Amino acid sequence: MKGVIFSAKGKNTFSNKQLNLLTSLSEITFYEVKSQLDSQKLFEVIQDNDFAALTPRSYSRLSKEQIQALRLKAIHLPTTGIHWFEPERFNNIDISFVPNFSSIACAEFTWSLILLMIRSHQSFLSSYNLDLHASKPGIELAGKTLGIWGLGNIGKRVAKYANCFEMEVLGYDKENKEINGVKQVSLEEMLEKSDIITIHIPINKSNHKIINKEIIDKLKEKTVLINTSRPKLMDYKALEEGLKNSKLKAVAIDKGYETQDKFRHLLKYDNFVLTPHISWYTRESIEREINGWFENIYSWLAGKPINIYNGQYY
Amino acid sequence: MKGVIFSAKGKNTFSNKQLNLLTSLSEITFYEVKSQLDSQKLFEVIQDNDFAALTPRSYSRLSKEQIQALRLKAIHLPTTGIHWFEPERFNNIDISFVPNFSSIACAEFTWSLILLMIRSHQSFLSSYNLDLHASKPGIELAGKTLGIWGLGNIGKRVAKYANCFEMEVLGYDKENKEINGVKQVSLEEMLEKSDIITIHIPINKSNHKIINKEIIDKLKEKTVLINTSRPKLMDYKALEEGLKNSKLKAVAIDKGYETQDKFRHLLKYDNFVLTPHISWYTRESIEREINGWFENIYSWLAGKPINIYNGQYY
Repeated sequence: MKGVIFSAKGKNTFSNKQLNLLTSLSEITFYEVKSQLDSQKLFEVIQDNDFAALTPRSYSRLSKEQIQALRLKAIHLPTTGIHWFEPERFNNIDISFVPNFSSIACAEFTWSLILLMIRSHQSFLSSYNLDLHASKPGIELAGKTLGIWGLGNIGKRVAKYANCFEMEVLGYDKENKEINGVKQVSLEEMLEKSDIITIHIPINKSNHKIINKEIIDKLKEKTVLINTSRPKLMDYKALEEGLKNSKLKAVAIDKGYETQDKFRHLLKYDNFVLTPHISWYTRESIEREINGWFENIYSWLAGKPINIYNGQYY
Repeated sequence: MKGVIFSAKGKNTFSNKQLNLLTSLSEITFYEVKSQLDSQKLFEVIQDNDFAALTPRSYSRLSKEQIQALRLKAIHLPTTGIHWFEPERFNNIDISFVPNFSSIACAEFTWSLILLMIRSHQSFLSSYNLDLHASKPGIELAGKTLGIWGLGNIGKRVAKYANCFEMEVLGYDKENKEINGVKQVSLEEMLEKSDIITIHIPINKSNHKIINKEIIDKLKEKTVLINTSRPKLMDYKALEEGLKNSKLKAVAIDKGYETQDKFRHLLKYDNFVLTPHISWYTRESIEREINGWFENIYSWLAGKPINIYNGQYY
């Protein structure tokens, strides 16, 4: 087997032990990616291989013709969400991904944004205006209702924190899930009764802008909205309107792969916070990601593929 | 009985029901305080009264002679910590305070600072530098050790959050306290084994700068230090040294009554955060404070004083 692994750190991505295991089963080239790759270059590097391991930065959209000309049998992606790769464009190739490596990081980060937004100290941090009397009091979580849209690994963990902070938790998920401390309700009920709503759903072709004007109109006055899932789930115009007409008390978004420009009209609001796709970004998360990527490549090489995209997960 | 109540909102501080109850037992004057009062003015206003209700802003240090010339039988303070009032200078006067009204707010705020500092997103919030790759990854709470210095109402609540976030909790308190999920240890052990340390002790005459060079030297490399108690518990020079020599990974302080100038040499550090005494500052906390203040005044007038300073609490 012949394979190429793209990553910012080249060979140093993996431990010596991992490298030895990988090279015991295949002939591997490392390609160091320092900035976004173009598709022609990508095509040239991967075309002669049996498998490729690709990061978001090393991937550029390949043309239909390029995809058809590939002899690849597998592509291994180190992320949980693989929408950036558009897996449905690749037929008859095993596509592996790394589920769940960042759930703890994302849940903890979500909680930090919730606490930040209800106390408004982002305004002190950005201005160093340290006059208490110039500011408005915050609110407390204890006794409030948290709505969780999406009860997967992250949503469930956030629910546990909320219970501990003495909140009532309303959960909405397409599937029926029995979770301790979570009252699973309809979307309508969650929207109407929550003081704070946090979004934990994967993105797919059909749910872009699912958080739109119609949804925001149904919220309580002064709802706090947190999104550490993909920003594209939200209609940014509707968000701005919600901030203006005070349906939304505060909004925080973790940026994902979009450019900052998309949010420029929102950045002028004191009660809007944008973070640079750091929800997942911890030392521990990175370690789990690399180990998961290694496991996927090694298992595939050993003839026992794991974590293969099945058309459902996106 | 004749009394004067100082507050920014005058009569509007209390509800009509509360006002009616107070005036049914006493003749009350309200004094609206918009900025810090001077001591001569304060003395003049309170001298002819049986009791006074004072806020930090309405109080100025009275001279010995002024104190001796007072005919006050009681002073009612709306705060939990009453060091600003120096209660030991007032003999033979009932001094009431409002314990515990802000514990939930302080514990929640402490948690927000812990999450903020381990993920460093304060640097994004203050600069809007949204380049993920320019930043260092954060760390996760799960699996780490939290040291809690002071196991009172706030410390205990923070311990509960830490357990829920899957942290080990080491507690240090002068008293022996059995708390679920907290291993109570010596100060040394807490300092040496904790990844993150949070301070929850009241200030008194003998514990200024109790967090000094000697204490900081005992910490693990790259400890995160959070203080939502009084800043004067800390030696700011030792803090700066700790930030320089990387004993301290990050420090967050909620400011208390001190001026911002005291912290100017620390504000230049990216991994130092100062907030303007907002730890206690929530709508719910303010409501509990006012209700507690009312209860103290009313109970005292009714001949059943509650929450009276006994020389122990400070």
